[in-house]
Amino acid sequence: MSASEPALRFEISARESSGPARCGRLHTRRGTLETPVFMPVGTAGAVKTLHPDEVQKLGFSLILGNTYHLMLRPGAERIAGLGGLHRFMGWTGSILTDSGGYQVFSLQKIRHIREEGVEFRSHIDGSTHFLSPERAIDIQQKLGSDIMMALDECPPHDAGAAYHAASCQRTTRWAARCLAVRRPGSGALFGIVQGGLDRVLRRAHLSELAAMPFEGLALGGLSVGEGPERMAEVVSEIAPLMPADRPRYLMGVGEPRDILMAVRAGIDMFDCVLPTRNARNGSLFTRQGRIQIRNSIHAGSDRPIEEGCGCPACQRFSRAYLRHLFLSNEILGHRLNTLHNLHFFAAFMADIRRAIREDRLEAFTSDFHRTFDSSRGEERFG
Amino acid sequence: MSASEPALRFEISARESSGPARCGRLHTRRGTLETPVFMPVGTAGAVKTLHPDEVQKLGFSLILGNTYHLMLRPGAERIAGLGGLHRFMGWTGSILTDSGGYQVFSLQKIRHIREEGVEFRSHIDGSTHFLSPERAIDIQQKLGSDIMMALDECPPHDAGAAYHAASCQRTTRWAARCLAVRRPGSGALFGIVQGGLDRVLRRAHLSELAAMPFEGLALGGLSVGEGPERMAEVVSEIAPLMPADRPRYLMGVGEPRDILMAVRAGIDMFDCVLPTRNARNGSLFTRQGRIQIRNSIHAGSDRPIEEGCGCPACQRFSRAYLRHLFLSNEILGHRLNTLHNLHFFAAFMADIRRAIREDRLEAFTSDFHRTFDSSRGEERFG
Repeated sequence: MSASEPALRFEISARESSGPARCGRLHTRRGTLETPVFMPVGTAGAVKTLHPDEVQKLGFSLILGNTYHLMLRPGAERIAGLGGLHRFMGWTGSILTDSGGYQVFSLQKIRHIREEGVEFRSHIDGSTHFLSPERAIDIQQKLGSDIMMALDECPPHDAGAAYHAASCQRTTRWAARCLAVRRPGSGALFGIVQGGLDRVLRRAHLSELAAMPFEGLALGGLSVGEGPERMAEVVSEIAPLMPADRPRYLMGVGEPRDILMAVRAGIDMFDCVLPTRNARNGSLFTRQGRIQIRNSIHAGSDRPIEEGCGCPACQRFSRAYLRHLFLSNEILGHRLNTLHNLHFFAAFMADIRRAIREDRLEAFTSDFHRTFDSSRGEERFG
Repeated sequence: MSASEPALRFEISARESSGPARCGRLHTRRGTLETPVFMPVGTAGAVKTLHPDEVQKLGFSLILGNTYHLMLRPGAERIAGLGGLHRFMGWTGSILTDSGGYQVFSLQKIRHIREEGVEFRSHIDGSTHFLSPERAIDIQQKLGSDIMMALDECPPHDAGAAYHAASCQRTTRWAARCLAVRRPGSGALFGIVQGGLDRVLRRAHLSELAAMPFEGLALGGLSVGEGPERMAEVVSEIAPLMPADRPRYLMGVGEPRDILMAVRAGIDMFDCVLPTRNARNGSLFTRQGRIQIRNSIHAGSDRPIEEGCGCPACQRFSRAYLRHLFLSNEILGHRLNTLHNLHFFAAFMADIRRAIREDRLEAFTSDFHRTFDSSRGEERFG
């Protein structure tokens, strides 16, 4: 990358008149996409169950790859030797990779943190590995990531004030080390703001990272069990303070309700396993709320998951058939459910962008809470 | 169906000059297909892992559905209420259904046979069911099958001469009962020749069934553990004696080697779970023999499964990626492997048909044994 050819460009294309929500265009090395954007998760080099052409046809041109999973299997050097992650998995769109930190720090009993980095044992075979800021960038560069994430320490939300403060300081030191080793020509690099639920700490950490030459900033350590209300308090206060000229990414979110809350606070990017994982559990999104396809009320239903839905599942197959596939543990069921749920998320984000452009996000939000968010009873009792 | 509109028409389009092999065109109620034909198995209302459009694009227009599985889940009446099996599973091609007999008779400890039919317990929930010739036809008609199979008794190949003889007699009586209850307008009906490895008994049973108004005849009770040589002895002697103007179907076969042997004996139709099941086990067919994709020799291979293969897996993905998906238990791996193996079978059958039309089936067979069939070492030692 030369000075005249940045790894990432971001332009705001529309703003809400009465709040921080905005639409933008994100130009990566591999293409342009509209924000706010949702990224399907391709944990192990595949968006689970789907062919890359299917992901693209659903309207996605940016997916997330997991550094932790890929470094363990098949290994970053292996993927580099095969031409990088895009070629390996046959994906021509853009890829954002996380730093591996989140997964590693969740291995509470089998990891050891020190200033240099974190040592951990593989969940696959128990082998020992070491992840440092330098190694996290090295791996992401080897994968050929278009948007890399700096290695952060991601403590539990209830870790205590002193731990969170020390963790933010370490994350800042690690952020500087990540920036220092990034090679010219590699992908963009985002920093990750930590600080748990302590908004003073979050503000301070944001100030530190905002002063560093990251192409974008993320909020980490949220949606980790603290509950939607407490997450909303942090996001609503911190997101509007994030540099407005750079993309803002809320990691690991998530629920349509939480995405909408965060967009209204000015967030541009999201990722979550929710649509793909729920699909494999038979939990399907509709605009009237979720349905659980294994529920016996669908046994004789000739209706699609959602009337009027343009997804490949709804275009051809009945709830009765999808229920049958689910009960029979047929892989095709997982595929069709995944296509439907990701289509729902793509359409949801498109609706949000349209509402911002037409400056009616508040009305959109009221509609949403009246329909989708108030009627999830079947999910619980089905 | 009226007298002028048969449920099935079959015409021979080419014959080998020095043997009983032939090419034909089979016209079902839903379309025309070329024989010799291989039918992918859609056990539970789906060719495992694949969307019906993928099955069609691979070149298949006839698949097999399992009466046993579908009668238990979701049930024949349920499928009938939803418009039949074609609509239920979104398949516009033709469907042949087995009678359920083979699966039921393999439930040795939880079934009871009497003249009226066979009582058995479901492998899913232990519930008791009854399958008679009349019920087998009733179910297949409810599914909307294009080619139905008469209920046969399918003993183990080593059941003993007296048992086999009695079983053939019962199968003939059941065959008559199936013909008696078939409704006008329903699909074609095939009878199933039994007799184990006793060629005298096979000839006698064939004579009985050939005299009945079936639209086609099948050889059942083969490829059930007797070994390829003993199967070949029966098929080579019996298949050429089957009525030449009707399609001949060898049930549950199978191995490319066995398909080729049977085509050379005059068989027109085949079905087997081999390509789809092997795919899910990582065993992939190539013209040079099978490979086991989990083998470590593929870990760094940028090559496709087979050079020059036009299947969706080989067009985009490396052996290294497919190995990674397999080891990661990613559903996409099962899909891509299935696409490849079924493509192999479709191409294999097309090659056989071409060899018959060009009257060079013997040379084709020699080539086949020199390449594919002599080099399956990796499969065993990989």
